Amino acid sequence: MTKKSVGILGATGYTGAELLRILIGHPGVSVEWLTSEKFAGLKISDVFHGLRGFCELECRSISSFKTLPAVDLVFSCLPHGTAMHFTGRLLDEGARVIDFSADFRFKDAALYESLYRAKHRHPQYIDDAVYGIPEIFRDDIRGARLVANPGCYATGVILGVLPLLREGLVDETSIIADAKSGESGAGRAPSLDHHFPESNENASLNPGAASHQGPEIEEVLYSASGRAAVITFVPHNIPVNRGILTTIYTRLKSKAGTASVLKIFEDFYRDEPFVRVCSEGKLPDIKDTRYTNSCSIGVTTNGDVALTVVSLDNLVKGASGQAVQNMNLMLGFPEAEALGFQGMFP
Amino acid sequence: MTKKSVGILGATGYTGAELLRILIGHPGVSVEWLTSEKFAGLKISDVFHGLRGFCELECRSISSFKTLPAVDLVFSCLPHGTAMHFTGRLLDEGARVIDFSADFRFKDAALYESLYRAKHRHPQYIDDAVYGIPEIFRDDIRGARLVANPGCYATGVILGVLPLLREGLVDETSIIADAKSGESGAGRAPSLDHHFPESNENASLNPGAASHQGPEIEEVLYSASGRAAVITFVPHNIPVNRGILTTIYTRLKSKAGTASVLKIFEDFYRDEPFVRVCSEGKLPDIKDTRYTNSCSIGVTTNGDVALTVVSLDNLVKGASGQAVQNMNLMLGFPEAEALGFQGMFP
Amino acid sequence: MTKKSVGILGATGYTGAELLRILIGHPGVSVEWLTSEKFAGLKISDVFHGLRGFCELECRSISSFKTLPAVDLVFSCLPHGTAMHFTGRLLDEGARVIDFSADFRFKDAALYESLYRAKHRHPQYIDDAVYGIPEIFRDDIRGARLVANPGCYATGVILGVLPLLREGLVDETSIIADAKSGESGAGRAPSLDHHFPESNENASLNPGAASHQGPEIEEVLYSASGRAAVITFVPHNIPVNRGILTTIYTRLKSKAGTASVLKIFEDFYRDEPFVRVCSEGKLPDIKDTRYTNSCSIGVTTNGDVALTVVSLDNLVKGASGQAVQNMNLMLGFPEAEALGFQGMFP
Amino acid sequence: MTKKSVGILGATGYTGAELLRILIGHPGVSVEWLTSEKFAGLKISDVFHGLRGFCELECRSISSFKTLPAVDLVFSCLPHGTAMHFTGRLLDEGARVIDFSADFRFKDAALYESLYRAKHRHPQYIDDAVYGIPEIFRDDIRGARLVANPGCYATGVILGVLPLLREGLVDETSIIADAKSGESGAGRAPSLDHHFPESNENASLNPGAASHQGPEIEEVLYSASGRAAVITFVPHNIPVNRGILTTIYTRLKSKAGTASVLKIFEDFYRDEPFVRVCSEGKLPDIKDTRYTNSCSIGVTTNGDVALTVVSLDNLVKGASGQAVQNMNLMLGFPEAEALGFQGMFP
Repeated sequence: MTKKSVGILGATGYTGAELLRILIGHPGVSVEWLTSEKFAGLKISDVFHGLRGFCELECRSISSFKTLPAVDLVFSCLPHGTAMHFTGRLLDEGARVIDFSADFRFKDAALYESLYRAKHRHPQYIDDAVYGIPEIFRDDIRGARLVANPGCYATGVILGVLPLLREGLVDETSIIADAKSGESGAGRAPSLDHHFPESNENASLNPGAASHQGPEIEEVLYSASGRAAVITFVPHNIPVNRGILTTIYTRLKSKAGTASVLKIFEDFYRDEPFVRVCSEGKLPDIKDTRYTNSCSIGVTTNGDVALTVVSLDNLVKGASGQAVQNMNLMLGFPEAEALGFQGMFP
Repeated sequence: MTKKSVGILGATGYTGAELLRILIGHPGVSVEWLTSEKFAGLKISDVFHGLRGFCELECRSISSFKTLPAVDLVFSCLPHGTAMHFTGRLLDEGARVIDFSADFRFKDAALYESLYRAKHRHPQYIDDAVYGIPEIFRDDIRGARLVANPGCYATGVILGVLPLLREGLVDETSIIADAKSGESGAGRAPSLDHHFPESNENASLNPGAASHQGPEIEEVLYSASGRAAVITFVPHNIPVNRGILTTIYTRLKSKAGTASVLKIFEDFYRDEPFVRVCSEGKLPDIKDTRYTNSCSIGVTTNGDVALTVVSLDNLVKGASGQAVQNMNLMLGFPEAEALGFQGMFP
Repeated sequence: MTKKSVGILGATGYTGAELLRILIGHPGVSVEWLTSEKFAGLKISDVFHGLRGFCELECRSISSFKTLPAVDLVFSCLPHGTAMHFTGRLLDEGARVIDFSADFRFKDAALYESLYRAKHRHPQYIDDAVYGIPEIFRDDIRGARLVANPGCYATGVILGVLPLLREGLVDETSIIADAKSGESGAGRAPSLDHHFPESNENASLNPGAASHQGPEIEEVLYSASGRAAVITFVPHNIPVNRGILTTIYTRLKSKAGTASVLKIFEDFYRDEPFVRVCSEGKLPDIKDTRYTNSCSIGVTTNGDVALTVVSLDNLVKGASGQAVQNMNLMLGFPEAEALGFQGMFP
Repeated sequence: MTKKSVGILGATGYTGAELLRILIGHPGVSVEWLTSEKFAGLKISDVFHGLRGFCELECRSISSFKTLPAVDLVFSCLPHGTAMHFTGRLLDEGARVIDFSADFRFKDAALYESLYRAKHRHPQYIDDAVYGIPEIFRDDIRGARLVANPGCYATGVILGVLPLLREGLVDETSIIADAKSGESGAGRAPSLDHHFPESNENASLNPGAASHQGPEIEEVLYSASGRAAVITFVPHNIPVNRGILTTIYTRLKSKAGTASVLKIFEDFYRDEPFVRVCSEGKLPDIKDTRYTNSCSIGVTTNGDVALTVVSLDNLVKGASGQAVQNMNLMLGFPEAEALGFQGMFP
């Protein structure tokens, strides 16, 4: 069987590294090219030593191509603002794209422009874009030419809030999501905030992520539930490499025990390969899902407060794993192909 | 001037080490004796090398004393359940005690007994006990014979909630406090949960601390404000040695801007040497207060939600620093004596 | 094709977890049973959550078996001193065993007994035992009924020293190996030394490992080279979960450039799938091999000093990965089967 | 008594922060001005929050001064290459300077120029410069107008090697120093190598520091002992904020027991307030000296190898603490003034 071909824009950040790791284990896909402005000219295996013997492609500058070679699907790991130019151009040329940036996540272009302080250059493709959480938009993803891969924080909050919201069980106006994220979520570009001696032994709020992914969460929850939820979303940085633990506080419209609330989650995610609902009495931690494409959800109630705890790996289910899950749907592979890694301990 | 004499029960845990560090810099106090069951027979400077040349006392087993030598004040760093026996006996003998355990924090003995699953052996001293947050109970602390030194989490939540609660500005039934604590908060006894490879690169909930300090917070807030607040208190462990960052979510009864809410905190803590209210636009992180007796509070509002972020060092303002602050009041020293350390960076 | 069957003694420590992770991905092997005294009665997937859906065996106490069910091969991850009893008994019954402990690593039983302060109960099997570094003893391993799986530190030092030693290029009496190891190397039993707040932000020497694995290294180097090298072996603990970086200092009998010394390593390991010799100018770090079965070696010379830097993951090439490599040889699988994982970054 | 006045060039790096912390506690010194190019215009207490209430000076750009105001002593924390310009100019104007850079550490200007790839602009001051280790050059420091504050690694190696070298007990040609340093040693400028996800969970060699501080060590040891030692100096980065643990391997010219080697260290450092020789059987770790101006040295011998382990805090005894110790000598204060901090645990 001939393999499907893919290319990767911006392959030398953390999401690119993780994407390559996963794709190397995928029997139906061949990476044809990859780009990196910073490491152009180096072999990717000289940038990420673990890839030696698995992938020896050279990192190319985008400008070194006259046109990007046609492939069955392009992953763009370029940053917000930059991505839309290339994604737009690729769509013009008929390509299918999974875009990791926020550039096509919003249906409301004006909202995007105000949040990211950038003019949207390809608003004509916004309608085509499907938000890439398979558990919610699976059918649309299959046929999509453009998938907007979700934010890492947003994935966890949406998966943790939607079941109760859709059932109409929680007060839409008082949802709080307090997230703790590993440092890789801030990307690979050095900065004082993420310089080792500054972030080690510290914990701090992340107001930038709050202002970006809060509205993303609200827009997607509305489109998935028809309910206009107001989310107080407060992300924090903690000194670990990977993983997001999100504690979600919702107010139940009427009191309910843990078992009955858990049942709603179990029903909602019953057939999902990558969402795991913990049994009563268990709440997940970061290690439960680290290095895996799983999202683990635990619930407990106290009076009219339902506490939902969501664990996922920001680079896998929060980024590159989910992107491959979307690719599998788009290209007709089994949805879980190459995503079965059970993690490492410790 | 003759110095005041103190003794320390349980000096070789983390709170004991920190207490000794602070007392060594106190010009008016002399540590006369200290106990440790685990390190009995060793010099304290062989347990904590930093004390060499500063304190060469021998660790004694409690049972090695016929009676504990009389001193002006005893600090008990013994664990919950054990502490009450010794604190009770010391009070019988006329001593003044600052007790780090939860044993005398609750006015409601039955609540204490159900939370800590232990019979209270000295309920006759519960009424005498003053809860040791000087910013709230300063006058009572001065004359107290028994100070119940507060929980580390509780200190931050109480200081972060009380100003708005007392003014009647927030809905008493929907207060949420999401805390992230360093590992030293769990004490010095080895356990699988706090074994390095298990807690490193992880973050997890801490249900034990939730069930203990949640009710403590509610009882103290009621006694300090006359309002029966319901707190959803959810503590987490993160892989740092020290520090607690608590993000508190309250619902304002009527909308208010950040500046007007901040003003309430500024007025409340105007003359306090150890509470620092951040200017508008700033929220504290763990490094802001690490190694110091300061509690740093930042506020921002969004609609009717007020977000209050509290940073303190769990071993200083959350334990031993606050104990010395209490001692200073009890023994007539300037309240800030020996507590001026400005921290270390990085 | 029918799979080969294996059993695991002591499956709930770190080497057990890693062994299970690898075996789950092995197409030719089926884990039939596993034991754990500490977690007896629990499903292994409740001990290590990542195994859910991959392995649902129950942890059994050894004493719950009348006799351990016959399998093609047993892995013993039991600690030194305990292991020999069960390994001996299994050999009596005709089983083949890979023993992770030091109990059968030494040919000199008296040396073992003095180092480990234990009487050897099954010296009759010492001669049968093959030291399990495939790069050196591959042919003997194939037919062995008992493989003594090497120490994690020892693996790195031996692989880093042997090429030059065997060629007679270095002074045998002045070899120094300074190793820095992650905390998982000390095992999963909680202790004050490895309690998070004690080992975090610290680095310290590890005299216990020095006294044990130093003589192991010397004995194996002698048997592999015929030269009686004296190794000053000094292991250190550093606050990372996994990985050992060892810097080896040897004195060349005559000056030689980096290129010519590198060539000796390249020739020695030319056909080895799991030893990677870095190109001139490169020295490995821990991340180069983390989570993989690779051992990465870099060399540089300065005058008559050759500096050899060896990186490996203490739980993979330093323990469970190497054990599976040995198993593959013993049971006739391709040597690299199930060991191709390229690691994770970051 | 009027205080002595000092100024600080480059106050907002890690050595600047530490220097300010110490000087604030010094009763005889007043900081008159400080410069920072990066944070010019901000109050230093807005850069380092711990300084609030202790120091409210504004960070000035150097160019904002016509001439730097005259003070009794200037600390220059400027980087190598930049420092010499300002130090030279200050000396022209008659100031006394403690320079943290390497610019005046070498007596051999050509060696400096080849190592640091920079032309020395003020070689006329090289002869005046005194290398700032008080334990060795105390008398010269007192009267010096220019002190070259030592490298952090160099301080530990020199203090650990000199006693045996001066006594002629060790082979001068085979000294090896393997150092493990915290990340703050690399400074505060963000870079990929010290970006949190890259250095966390890693350990790596530091060839830049090797090439710079190796020759510095050799030059100083020669000048202090008259013996031309050849040091194989190999520094490593480990993921802690502070501290250097250095393991030094020397070959004794004749066998000697640990006690007799220890005695040489004890005699050498008998009256030193900041060098602590461990009793037999003890070797220091990083926590022994963290946050203090102490250097802790332990020794053990094995055959003809003497193992010397040195622990110090790279920002205190390895930089700013030692600078204040030098200042105390230069300005006539008690040598230990403001340097008595006993550290923090954990």
